[in-house]
Amino acid sequence: MKNMNKKDRPIGVFDSGVGGLTVLREIVRQLPDEGTIYLGDTARVPYGIRSPETVTRYSFENTRFLFSKDIKVLVVACNTASSVSLDAIKKSIQVPVIGVIEPGAKAAVRATRNNRVGIIGTEATIRSDSYTKSIRAHDKDIKVFGLPCPLFVPLAEEGWTEGDIATMIAERYLNDIKDKGIDTLVLGCTHYPLLKKVITRLMGKGVRLIDSAVEVAQEIKTTLEITGLKGAKRGKPLREFYVTDSPEKFRRIGEKFLGQKIEHIEKVEVGN
Amino acid sequence: MKNMNKKDRPIGVFDSGVGGLTVLREIVRQLPDEGTIYLGDTARVPYGIRSPETVTRYSFENTRFLFSKDIKVLVVACNTASSVSLDAIKKSIQVPVIGVIEPGAKAAVRATRNNRVGIIGTEATIRSDSYTKSIRAHDKDIKVFGLPCPLFVPLAEEGWTEGDIATMIAERYLNDIKDKGIDTLVLGCTHYPLLKKVITRLMGKGVRLIDSAVEVAQEIKTTLEITGLKGAKRGKPLREFYVTDSPEKFRRIGEKFLGQKIEHIEKVEVGN
Repeated sequence: MKNMNKKDRPIGVFDSGVGGLTVLREIVRQLPDEGTIYLGDTARVPYGIRSPETVTRYSFENTRFLFSKDIKVLVVACNTASSVSLDAIKKSIQVPVIGVIEPGAKAAVRATRNNRVGIIGTEATIRSDSYTKSIRAHDKDIKVFGLPCPLFVPLAEEGWTEGDIATMIAERYLNDIKDKGIDTLVLGCTHYPLLKKVITRLMGKGVRLIDSAVEVAQEIKTTLEITGLKGAKRGKPLREFYVTDSPEKFRRIGEKFLGQKIEHIEKVEVGN
Repeated sequence: MKNMNKKDRPIGVFDSGVGGLTVLREIVRQLPDEGTIYLGDTARVPYGIRSPETVTRYSFENTRFLFSKDIKVLVVACNTASSVSLDAIKKSIQVPVIGVIEPGAKAAVRATRNNRVGIIGTEATIRSDSYTKSIRAHDKDIKVFGLPCPLFVPLAEEGWTEGDIATMIAERYLNDIKDKGIDTLVLGCTHYPLLKKVITRLMGKGVRLIDSAVEVAQEIKTTLEITGLKGAKRGKPLREFYVTDSPEKFRRIGEKFLGQKIEHIEKVEVGN
Protein backbone atom coordinates (compact mmCIF):
# COMPACT_ATOMS: atom_id res chain seq x y z
CA MET A 1 0.00 0.00 0.00
CA LYS A 2 3.00 2.29 0.68
CA ASN A 3 3.53 3.05 -3.01
CA MET A 4 -0.08 3.89 -3.71
CA ASN A 5 -0.91 7.24 -5.26
CA LYS A 6 -1.70 9.53 -2.33
CA LYS A 7 -5.20 10.30 -3.67
CA ASP A 8 -6.11 6.62 -3.69
CA ARG A 9 -5.30 6.09 -0.03
CA PRO A 10 -8.17 5.48 2.38
CA ILE A 11 -9.69 7.76 5.02
CA GLY A 12 -8.91 6.54 8.56
CA VAL A 13 -11.56 6.83 11.26
CA PHE A 14 -11.35 5.86 14.92
CA ASP A 15 -13.75 5.84 17.85
CA SER A 16 -13.86 4.08 21.20
CA GLY A 17 -16.65 1.82 19.92
CA VAL A 18 -19.56 1.69 17.50
CA GLY A 19 -20.70 5.34 17.79
CA GLY A 20 -18.26 6.59 15.15
CA LEU A 21 -20.00 4.39 12.60
CA THR A 22 -22.68 7.09 12.25
CA VAL A 23 -19.85 9.35 11.09
CA LEU A 24 -18.52 6.65 8.76
CA ARG A 25 -22.02 6.21 7.37
CA GLU A 26 -22.13 9.87 6.39
CA ILE A 27 -18.63 9.71 4.89
CA VAL A 28 -19.74 6.76 2.74
CA ARG A 29 -22.91 8.63 1.76
CA GLN A 30 -21.22 11.92 0.88
CA LEU A 31 -17.96 10.46 -0.48
CA PRO A 32 -18.96 7.06 -1.91
CA ASP A 33 -15.78 6.58 -3.93
CA GLU A 34 -13.36 6.98 -1.01
CA GLY A 35 -11.92 3.89 0.70
CA THR A 36 -12.23 3.77 4.49
CA ILE A 37 -10.52 2.05 7.43
CA TYR A 38 -12.37 2.13 10.75
CA LEU A 39 -10.88 1.31 14.14
CA GLY A 40 -13.19 0.76 17.14
CA ASP A 41 -11.18 0.56 20.37
CA THR A 42 -13.80 -1.70 21.93
CA ALA A 43 -11.47 -3.24 24.54
CA ARG A 44 -11.07 0.15 26.19
CA VAL A 45 -14.52 1.70 25.66
CA PRO A 46 -15.91 3.97 27.12
CA TYR A 47 -13.39 6.82 26.90
CA GLY A 48 -15.73 9.31 28.63
CA ILE A 49 -14.94 8.00 32.11
CA ARG A 50 -11.12 7.98 31.73
CA SER A 51 -8.61 10.69 32.59
CA PRO A 52 -7.40 13.07 29.82
CA GLU A 53 -3.90 11.52 29.99
CA THR A 54 -5.28 8.03 29.43
CA VAL A 55 -7.56 9.14 26.57
CA THR A 56 -4.62 10.93 24.93
CA ARG A 57 -2.46 7.81 25.18
CA TYR A 58 -5.22 5.66 23.65
CA SER A 59 -5.72 8.25 20.89
CA PHE A 60 -2.01 8.18 20.03
CA GLU A 61 -2.06 4.39 19.85
CA ASN A 62 -5.13 4.42 17.58
CA THR A 63 -3.56 7.12 15.42
CA ARG A 64 -0.33 5.16 15.06
CA PHE A 65 -2.27 2.05 14.04
CA LEU A 66 -4.26 3.87 11.35
CA PHE A 67 -1.22 5.80 10.14
CA SER A 68 0.54 2.47 9.60
CA LYS A 69 -2.30 1.64 7.19
CA ASP A 70 -1.25 4.59 5.04
CA ILE A 71 -4.32 6.81 5.37
CA LYS A 72 -4.64 10.24 3.74
CA VAL A 73 -6.91 11.87 6.36
CA LEU A 74 -7.59 10.96 9.99
CA VAL A 75 -11.07 11.39 11.47
CA VAL A 76 -11.35 11.32 15.27
CA ALA A 77 -14.99 10.21 15.43
CA CYS A 78 -15.15 10.25 19.23
CA ASN A 79 -16.32 13.22 21.25
CA THR A 80 -14.08 12.54 24.22
CA ALA A 81 -10.93 12.00 22.17
CA SER A 82 -11.76 15.08 20.06
CA SER A 83 -12.22 17.22 23.20
CA VAL A 84 -9.11 16.03 24.93
CA SER A 85 -6.45 15.09 22.41
CA LEU A 86 -7.12 16.61 18.98
CA ASP A 87 -4.35 19.22 19.11
CA ALA A 88 -1.80 16.64 20.28
CA ILE A 89 -2.81 14.23 17.49
CA LYS A 90 -2.55 16.99 14.87
CA LYS A 91 1.06 17.64 15.89
CA SER A 92 1.91 13.94 15.79
CA ILE A 93 1.06 13.05 12.16
CA GLN A 94 1.55 14.45 8.70
CA VAL A 95 -2.01 14.08 7.37
CA PRO A 96 -5.02 16.36 7.98
CA VAL A 97 -6.89 15.51 11.22
CA ILE A 98 -10.62 16.20 11.66
CA GLY A 99 -12.47 15.91 14.97
CA VAL A 100 -16.22 15.80 15.61
CA ILE A 101 -16.70 18.87 17.79
CA GLU A 102 -15.54 21.81 15.66
CA PRO A 103 -17.68 20.95 12.57
CA GLY A 104 -20.83 20.60 14.71
CA ALA A 105 -20.06 23.80 16.62
CA LYS A 106 -19.46 25.79 13.42
CA ALA A 107 -22.71 24.53 11.92
CA ALA A 108 -24.59 25.59 15.06
CA VAL A 109 -23.08 29.07 14.88
CA ARG A 110 -24.21 29.36 11.23
CA ALA A 111 -27.69 27.98 11.97
CA THR A 112 -28.84 29.94 15.02
CA ARG A 113 -30.92 33.06 14.52
CA ASN A 114 -31.74 33.85 18.14
CA ASN A 115 -28.27 33.00 19.52
CA ARG A 116 -29.60 30.25 21.79
CA VAL A 117 -28.09 26.82 21.11
CA GLY A 118 -28.67 23.51 22.93
CA ILE A 119 -26.14 20.68 23.10
CA ILE A 120 -27.09 17.14 24.07
CA GLY A 121 -24.40 14.54 24.72
CA THR A 122 -22.93 12.14 27.25
CA GLU A 123 -22.18 13.37 30.75
CA ALA A 124 -18.46 13.52 29.94
CA THR A 125 -18.98 15.64 26.82
CA ILE A 126 -21.36 18.06 28.52
CA ARG A 127 -19.12 18.36 31.58
CA SER A 128 -16.07 19.05 29.36
CA ASP A 129 -17.82 22.14 27.91
CA SER A 130 -16.00 21.49 24.64
CA TYR A 131 -18.94 22.45 22.39
CA THR A 132 -19.62 25.57 24.45
CA LYS A 133 -15.98 26.69 24.19
CA SER A 134 -15.88 25.99 20.46
CA ILE A 135 -19.16 27.82 19.77
CA ARG A 136 -18.21 30.80 21.90
CA ALA A 137 -14.79 31.04 20.23
CA HIS A 138 -16.72 31.77 17.01
CA ASP A 139 -19.35 34.03 18.55
CA LYS A 140 -19.24 34.96 22.20
CA ASP A 141 -22.79 36.33 22.14
CA ILE A 142 -24.31 32.87 21.72
CA LYS A 143 -25.83 31.32 24.83
CA VAL A 144 -25.22 27.57 25.03
CA PHE A 145 -27.32 25.12 27.08
CA GLY A 146 -25.84 21.67 27.68
CA LEU A 147 -27.88 18.64 28.67
CA PRO A 148 -26.57 15.12 29.33
CA CYS A 149 -28.88 12.29 28.17
CA PRO A 150 -27.25 9.14 29.63
CA LEU A 151 -29.92 6.69 28.46
CA PHE A 152 -29.63 7.61 24.77
CA VAL A 153 -26.45 5.54 24.24
CA PRO A 154 -27.81 2.24 25.63
CA LEU A 155 -31.13 2.92 23.89
CA ALA A 156 -29.37 3.30 20.52
CA GLU A 157 -27.20 0.23 21.16
CA GLU A 158 -30.29 -1.80 22.06
CA GLY A 159 -31.85 -0.69 18.75
CA TRP A 160 -34.91 0.81 20.45
CA THR A 161 -34.74 4.00 18.41
CA GLU A 162 -38.44 4.48 17.70
CA GLY A 163 -41.69 3.74 19.49
CA ASP A 164 -43.06 4.52 22.94
CA ILE A 165 -39.98 3.83 25.07
CA ALA A 166 -37.64 5.99 22.98
CA THR A 167 -40.26 8.75 22.82
CA MET A 168 -40.90 8.80 26.57
CA ILE A 169 -37.21 8.84 27.46
CA ALA A 170 -36.48 11.58 24.93
CA GLU A 171 -39.46 13.58 26.17
CA ARG A 172 -38.27 13.39 29.75
CA TYR A 173 -34.80 14.67 28.83
CA LEU A 174 -35.72 17.21 26.18
CA ASN A 175 -38.43 19.01 28.16
CA ASP A 176 -35.61 20.61 30.15
CA ILE A 177 -33.98 22.08 27.08
CA LYS A 178 -37.19 23.04 25.26
CA ASP A 179 -37.84 25.55 28.04
CA LYS A 180 -34.66 27.43 27.15
CA GLY A 181 -36.05 28.88 23.92
CA ILE A 182 -33.26 27.46 21.74
CA ASP A 183 -33.64 27.46 17.93
CA THR A 184 -30.70 25.04 17.28
CA LEU A 185 -29.84 21.71 18.89
CA VAL A 186 -26.53 19.89 18.38
CA LEU A 187 -26.53 16.10 18.58
CA GLY A 188 -23.23 16.08 20.46
CA CYS A 189 -22.76 12.32 20.61
CA THR A 190 -22.11 9.99 17.70
CA HIS A 191 -24.84 7.62 18.95
CA TYR A 192 -27.60 10.22 18.79
CA PRO A 193 -28.23 10.36 15.03
CA LEU A 194 -30.02 7.02 15.48
CA LEU A 195 -32.60 8.85 17.58
CA LYS A 196 -32.93 11.76 15.15
CA LYS A 197 -36.53 11.02 14.16
CA VAL A 198 -37.80 10.98 17.73
CA ILE A 199 -35.79 14.07 18.71
CA THR A 200 -36.92 16.02 15.63
CA ARG A 201 -40.56 15.23 16.33
CA LEU A 202 -40.29 16.27 19.98
CA MET A 203 -38.34 19.48 19.42
CA GLY A 204 -40.74 20.63 16.72
CA LYS A 205 -40.23 22.59 13.50
CA GLY A 206 -38.84 25.70 15.19
CA VAL A 207 -35.62 23.94 16.22
CA ARG A 208 -32.88 23.13 13.73
CA LEU A 209 -31.04 19.87 14.50
CA ILE A 210 -27.30 19.73 13.86
CA ASP A 211 -26.00 16.23 13.17
CA SER A 212 -22.23 16.36 13.72
CA ALA A 213 -21.76 13.33 11.45
CA VAL A 214 -23.16 15.25 8.46
CA GLU A 215 -20.95 18.24 9.23
CA VAL A 216 -17.83 16.11 9.69
CA ALA A 217 -18.32 14.40 6.32
CA GLN A 218 -18.81 17.84 4.76
CA GLU A 219 -15.56 19.04 6.35
CA ILE A 220 -13.67 16.00 5.04
CA LYS A 221 -15.02 16.69 1.56
CA THR A 222 -13.80 20.28 1.71
CA THR A 223 -10.41 19.21 3.10
CA LEU A 224 -9.91 16.64 0.33
CA GLU A 225 -10.79 19.23 -2.30
CA ILE A 226 -8.48 21.92 -0.88
CA THR A 227 -5.54 19.55 -0.49
CA GLY A 228 -6.07 17.87 -3.85
CA LEU A 229 -6.51 14.49 -2.16
CA LYS A 230 -9.98 13.63 -3.49
CA GLY A 231 -9.99 10.05 -4.77
CA ALA A 232 -11.32 9.00 -8.15
CA LYS A 233 -13.88 6.25 -8.70
CA ARG A 234 -12.08 2.91 -9.18
CA GLY A 235 -14.29 -0.12 -8.63
CA LYS A 236 -15.45 -1.07 -5.15
CA PRO A 237 -13.83 1.13 -2.51
CA LEU A 238 -11.95 -0.34 0.48
CA ARG A 239 -14.13 -0.95 3.61
CA GLU A 240 -11.96 -2.32 6.41
CA PHE A 241 -12.92 -2.58 10.09
CA TYR A 242 -10.66 -3.26 13.07
CA VAL A 243 -11.62 -3.71 16.71
CA THR A 244 -9.55 -4.29 19.84
CA ASP A 245 -12.01 -6.77 21.42
CA SER A 246 -14.13 -9.58 20.00
CA PRO A 247 -15.83 -8.55 16.72
CA GLU A 248 -19.26 -10.23 17.25
CA LYS A 249 -21.02 -7.59 19.33
CA PHE A 250 -19.43 -4.79 17.29
CA ARG A 251 -20.69 -6.35 14.09
CA ARG A 252 -24.20 -6.98 15.41
CA ILE A 253 -24.76 -3.50 16.84
CA GLY A 254 -22.51 -1.78 14.31
CA GLU A 255 -24.54 -2.82 11.27
CA LYS A 256 -27.51 -0.87 12.68
CA PHE A 257 -25.31 2.20 13.10
CA LEU A 258 -23.69 1.89 9.70
CA GLY A 259 -26.84 0.90 7.84
CA GLN A 260 -24.99 -1.78 5.87
CA LYS A 261 -23.14 -5.07 6.31
CA ILE A 262 -19.75 -5.12 7.99
CA GLU A 263 -17.66 -7.58 6.00
CA HIS A 264 -13.92 -7.27 6.59
CA ILE A 265 -13.48 -7.11 10.33
CA GLU A 266 -10.45 -8.15 12.34
CA LYS A 267 -9.36 -8.01 15.97
CA VAL A 268 -6.04 -6.21 16.52
CA GLU A 269 -3.80 -5.00 19.35
CA VAL A 270 -3.06 -1.29 19.25
CA GLY A 271 -1.53 -0.69 22.70
CA ASN A 272 1.97 -1.55 23.85
CA MET B 1 -5.41 -1.58 62.98
CA LYS B 2 -3.05 -4.57 62.73
CA ASN B 3 -3.38 -5.36 66.45
CA MET B 4 -7.15 -5.20 66.52
CA ASN B 5 -9.06 -8.21 67.83
CA LYS B 6 -9.92 -10.26 64.76
CA LYS B 7 -13.68 -10.09 65.48
CA ASP B 8 -13.60 -6.30 65.44
CA ARG B 9 -12.08 -6.08 61.98
CA PRO B 10 -14.26 -4.79 59.13
CA ILE B 11 -15.86 -6.66 56.24
CA GLY B 12 -14.21 -5.77 52.90
CA VAL B 13 -16.37 -5.42 49.79
CA PHE B 14 -15.32 -4.61 46.24
CA ASP B 15 -17.12 -4.02 42.98
CA SER B 16 -16.22 -2.35 39.69
CA GLY B 17 -18.51 0.57 40.53
CA VAL B 18 -21.66 1.49 42.46
CA GLY B 19 -23.62 -1.74 41.90
CA GLY B 20 -22.04 -3.53 44.87
CA LEU B 21 -23.56 -0.90 47.15
CA THR B 22 -26.87 -2.81 47.01
CA VAL B 23 -24.94 -5.72 48.56
CA LEU B 24 -23.36 -3.41 51.14
CA ARG B 25 -26.81 -2.04 51.93
CA GLU B 26 -28.02 -5.53 52.80
CA ILE B 27 -24.89 -6.25 54.86
CA VAL B 28 -25.54 -3.07 56.85
CA ARG B 29 -29.21 -4.04 57.27
CA GLN B 30 -28.59 -7.64 58.34
CA LEU B 31 -25.33 -7.03 60.25
CA PRO B 32 -25.66 -3.48 61.57
CA ASP B 33 -22.83 -3.78 64.10
CA GLU B 34 -20.15 -4.86 61.60
CA GLY B 35 -17.71 -2.27 60.23
CA THR B 36 -17.34 -2.16 56.42
CA ILE B 37 -14.80 -1.00 53.86
CA TYR B 38 -16.03 -0.65 50.27
CA LEU B 39 -13.84 -0.30 47.20
CA GLY B 40 -15.40 0.76 43.88
CA ASP B 41 -12.91 0.37 41.02
CA THR B 42 -14.56 3.21 39.11
CA ALA B 43 -11.53 4.04 36.96
CA ARG B 44 -11.74 0.62 35.31
CA VAL B 45 -15.50 0.04 35.24
CA PRO B 46 -17.17 -1.85 33.53
CA TYR B 47 -15.54 -5.24 34.08
CA GLY B 48 -18.11 -7.07 31.94
CA ILE B 49 -16.46 -6.08 28.67
CA ARG B 50 -12.87 -7.04 29.65
CA SER B 51 -11.03 -10.33 29.16
CA PRO B 52 -10.96 -12.87 32.04
CA GLU B 53 -7.19 -12.29 32.48
CA THR B 54 -7.70 -8.54 32.89
CA VAL B 55 -10.62 -8.98 35.30
CA THR B 56 -8.56 -11.43 37.37
CA ARG B 57 -5.65 -8.98 37.55
CA TYR B 58 -7.99 -6.17 38.65
CA SER B 59 -9.57 -8.48 41.24
CA PHE B 60 -6.16 -9.35 42.69
CA GLU B 61 -5.28 -5.67 42.94
CA ASN B 62 -8.58 -4.86 44.68
CA THR B 63 -8.14 -7.83 47.01
CA ARG B 64 -4.61 -6.75 47.93
CA PHE B 65 -5.84 -3.24 48.69
CA LEU B 66 -8.65 -4.43 50.97
CA PHE B 67 -6.44 -7.05 52.62
CA SER B 68 -4.00 -4.27 53.53
CA LYS B 69 -6.89 -2.68 55.45
CA ASP B 70 -7.01 -5.76 57.68
CA ILE B 71 -10.44 -7.14 56.81
CA LYS B 72 -11.90 -10.33 58.29
CA VAL B 73 -14.05 -11.38 55.29
CA LEU B 74 -13.86 -10.41 51.61
CA VAL B 75 -17.04 -9.95 49.57
CA VAL B 76 -16.66 -9.88 45.79
CA ALA B 77 -19.82 -7.88 45.06
CA CYS B 78 -19.34 -7.93 41.29
CA ASN B 79 -20.90 -10.55 39.04
CA THR B 80 -18.10 -10.53 36.48
CA ALA B 81 -15.28 -10.79 39.04
CA SER B 82 -17.23 -13.50 40.90
CA SER B 83 -17.69 -15.51 37.69
CA VAL B 84 -14.14 -15.21 36.52
CA SER B 85 -11.77 -14.92 39.46
CA LEU B 86 -13.39 -16.15 42.70
CA ASP B 87 -11.39 -19.39 42.95
CA ALA B 88 -8.12 -17.59 42.28
CA ILE B 89 -8.91 -14.96 44.92
CA LYS B 90 -9.82 -17.62 47.48
CA LYS B 91 -6.40 -19.21 47.03
CA SER B 92 -4.64 -15.84 47.36
CA ILE B 93 -5.82 -14.69 50.81
CA GLN B 94 -6.27 -16.11 54.30
CA VAL B 95 -9.79 -14.80 55.03
CA PRO B 96 -13.14 -16.23 53.89
CA VAL B 97 -14.15 -15.00 50.40
CA ILE B 98 -17.81 -14.72 49.34
CA GLY B 99 -18.96 -14.03 45.78
CA VAL B 100 -22.39 -12.96 44.55
CA ILE B 101 -23.28 -15.85 42.25
CA GLU B 102 -23.26 -18.94 44.46
CA PRO B 103 -25.59 -17.51 47.19
CA GLY B 104 -28.16 -16.41 44.58
CA ALA B 105 -27.92 -19.73 42.73
CA LYS B 106 -28.38 -21.76 45.94
CA ALA B 107 -31.41 -19.68 46.92
CA ALA B 108 -32.96 -20.29 43.50
CA VAL B 109 -32.44 -24.04 43.85
CA ARG B 110 -34.19 -23.95 47.25
CA ALA B 111 -37.02 -21.75 45.98
CA THR B 112 -38.12 -23.39 42.74
CA ARG B 113 -40.99 -25.89 42.83
CA ASN B 114 -41.38 -26.51 39.09
CA ASN B 115 -37.63 -26.60 38.32
CA ARG B 116 -37.82 -23.65 35.94
CA VAL B 117 -35.61 -20.71 36.92
CA GLY B 118 -35.02 -17.41 35.11
CA ILE B 119 -31.86 -15.29 35.41
CA ILE B 120 -31.71 -11.64 34.41
CA GLY B 121 -28.38 -9.84 34.26
CA THR B 122 -25.95 -7.93 32.06
CA GLU B 123 -24.96 -9.38 28.70
CA ALA B 124 -21.59 -10.47 30.11
CA THR B 125 -23.15 -12.33 33.05
CA ILE B 126 -25.75 -14.10 30.93
CA ARG B 127 -23.20 -15.01 28.27
CA SER B 128 -20.83 -16.41 30.92
CA ASP B 129 -23.52 -18.92 32.01
CA SER B 130 -22.16 -18.69 35.54
CA TYR B 131 -25.57 -18.84 37.25
CA THR B 132 -26.67 -21.71 35.04
CA LYS B 133 -23.54 -23.71 35.86
CA SER B 134 -23.85 -23.00 39.57
CA ILE B 135 -27.58 -23.92 39.69
CA ARG B 136 -27.08 -27.09 37.68
CA ALA B 137 -24.16 -28.14 39.86
CA HIS B 138 -26.71 -28.30 42.70
CA ASP B 139 -29.54 -29.85 40.69
CA LYS B 140 -29.08 -30.85 37.10
CA ASP B 141 -32.83 -31.25 36.54
CA ILE B 142 -33.45 -27.51 36.80
CA LYS B 143 -34.01 -25.71 33.53
CA VAL B 144 -32.43 -22.24 33.50
CA PHE B 145 -33.47 -19.38 31.20
CA GLY B 146 -31.08 -16.42 30.93
CA LEU B 147 -32.09 -12.98 29.68
CA PRO B 148 -29.84 -9.93 29.34
CA CYS B 149 -31.50 -6.58 30.17
CA PRO B 150 -28.91 -3.99 29.08
CA LEU B 151 -31.03 -0.91 29.85
CA PHE B 152 -31.58 -1.80 33.51
CA VAL B 153 -28.13 -0.60 34.61
CA PRO B 154 -28.34 2.91 33.08
CA LEU B 155 -31.96 3.12 34.25
CA ALA B 156 -30.93 2.38 37.85
CA GLU B 157 -27.99 4.79 37.64
CA GLU B 158 -30.27 7.52 36.28
CA GLY B 159 -32.56 6.93 39.27
CA TRP B 160 -35.59 6.20 37.07
CA THR B 161 -36.57 3.13 39.03
CA GLU B 162 -40.34 3.60 39.11
CA GLY B 163 -42.95 5.11 36.81
CA ASP B 164 -43.89 4.65 33.18
CA ILE B 165 -40.44 4.48 31.61
CA ALA B 166 -39.10 1.84 34.01
CA THR B 167 -42.32 -0.16 33.68
CA MET B 168 -42.34 -0.13 29.87
CA ILE B 169 -38.68 -1.12 29.59
CA ALA B 170 -39.10 -3.90 32.15
CA GLU B 171 -42.24 -5.11 30.39
CA ARG B 172 -40.45 -5.29 27.07
CA TYR B 173 -37.63 -7.39 28.51
CA LEU B 174 -39.60 -9.55 30.91
CA ASN B 175 -42.30 -10.64 28.46
CA ASP B 176 -39.71 -12.94 26.93
CA ILE B 177 -39.02 -14.72 30.19
CA LYS B 178 -42.64 -14.78 31.41
CA ASP B 179 -43.44 -17.10 28.50
CA LYS B 180 -41.04 -19.73 29.88
CA GLY B 181 -43.26 -20.71 32.80
CA ILE B 182 -40.61 -20.01 35.45
CA ASP B 183 -41.58 -19.84 39.12
CA THR B 184 -38.29 -18.26 40.32
CA LEU B 185 -36.35 -15.28 38.94
CA VAL B 186 -32.81 -14.35 40.03
CA LEU B 187 -31.81 -10.67 39.92
CA GLY B 188 -28.36 -11.53 38.61
CA CYS B 189 -26.92 -8.03 38.64
CA THR B 190 -26.18 -5.87 41.67
CA HIS B 191 -27.97 -2.91 40.04
CA TYR B 192 -31.29 -4.71 39.69
CA PRO B 193 -32.55 -4.62 43.30
CA LEU B 194 -33.32 -0.94 42.63
CA LEU B 195 -35.90 -2.10 40.10
CA LYS B 196 -37.36 -4.78 42.36
CA LYS B 197 -40.76 -3.12 42.77
CA VAL B 198 -41.38 -2.83 39.04
CA ILE B 199 -40.08 -6.34 38.34
CA THR B 200 -42.16 -7.89 41.14
CA ARG B 201 -45.32 -6.22 39.86
CA LEU B 202 -44.73 -7.36 36.28
CA MET B 203 -43.77 -10.94 37.09
CA GLY B 204 -46.82 -11.41 39.33
CA LYS B 205 -47.36 -13.36 42.52
CA GLY B 206 -46.54 -16.78 41.02
CA VAL B 207 -42.86 -15.90 40.58
CA ARG B 208 -40.45 -15.75 43.50
CA LEU B 209 -37.74 -13.08 43.12
CA ILE B 210 -34.23 -13.89 44.37
CA ASP B 211 -32.22 -10.83 45.34
CA SER B 212 -28.57 -11.92 45.42
CA ALA B 213 -27.72 -9.08 47.79
CA VAL B 214 -30.04 -10.51 50.47
CA GLU B 215 -28.57 -13.99 50.00
CA VAL B 216 -24.97 -12.74 50.10
CA ALA B 217 -25.56 -10.90 53.38
CA GLN B 218 -27.16 -14.08 54.77
CA GLU B 219 -24.11 -16.08 53.69
CA ILE B 220 -21.75 -13.60 55.36
CA LYS B 221 -23.78 -13.87 58.57
CA THR B 222 -23.52 -17.66 58.52
CA THR B 223 -19.79 -17.51 57.74
CA LEU B 224 -19.11 -15.10 60.61
CA GLU B 225 -21.07 -17.33 62.99
CA ILE B 226 -19.32 -20.54 61.90
CA THR B 227 -15.84 -19.01 62.06
CA GLY B 228 -16.49 -17.20 65.35
CA LEU B 229 -15.74 -13.85 63.68
CA LYS B 230 -19.04 -12.10 64.44
CA GLY B 231 -18.34 -8.61 65.81
CA ALA B 232 -19.91 -7.18 68.94
CA LYS B 233 -21.72 -3.86 69.13
CA ARG B 234 -19.24 -1.08 69.96
CA GLY B 235 -20.47 2.42 69.14
CA LYS B 236 -20.74 3.56 65.55
CA PRO B 237 -19.34 0.94 63.15
CA LEU B 238 -16.69 1.83 60.54
CA ARG B 239 -18.08 2.91 57.09
CA GLU B 240 -15.21 3.63 54.73
CA PHE B 241 -15.46 4.05 50.95
CA TYR B 242 -12.65 4.08 48.39
CA VAL B 243 -12.85 4.69 44.66
CA THR B 244 -10.22 4.66 41.92
CA ASP B 245 -11.65 7.64 40.01
CA SER B 246 -13.20 10.94 41.12
CA PRO B 247 -15.62 10.44 44.04
CA GLU B 248 -18.35 12.94 43.02
CA LYS B 249 -20.36 10.79 40.62
CA PHE B 250 -19.91 7.72 42.82
CA ARG B 251 -21.23 9.60 45.82
CA ARG B 252 -24.19 11.10 43.95
CA ILE B 253 -25.39 7.84 42.38
CA GLY B 254 -24.11 5.66 45.20
CA GLU B 255 -26.27 7.25 47.89
CA LYS B 256 -29.36 6.10 45.98
CA PHE B 257 -27.99 2.56 45.84
CA LEU B 258 -26.92 2.51 49.46
CA GLY B 259 -29.98 4.30 50.82
CA GLN B 260 -27.86 6.46 53.11
CA LYS B 261 -25.18 9.16 53.06
CA ILE B 262 -21.64 8.30 51.97
CA GLU B 263 -19.37 10.18 54.34
CA HIS B 264 -15.78 8.92 54.34
CA ILE B 265 -14.78 8.57 50.71
CA GLU B 266 -11.29 8.76 49.25
CA LYS B 267 -9.70 8.26 45.84
CA VAL B 268 -6.91 5.67 45.81
CA GLU B 269 -4.61 3.87 43.35
CA VAL B 270 -4.89 0.10 43.47
CA GLY B 271 -3.04 -0.95 40.32
CA ASN B 272 0.73 -1.08 39.80
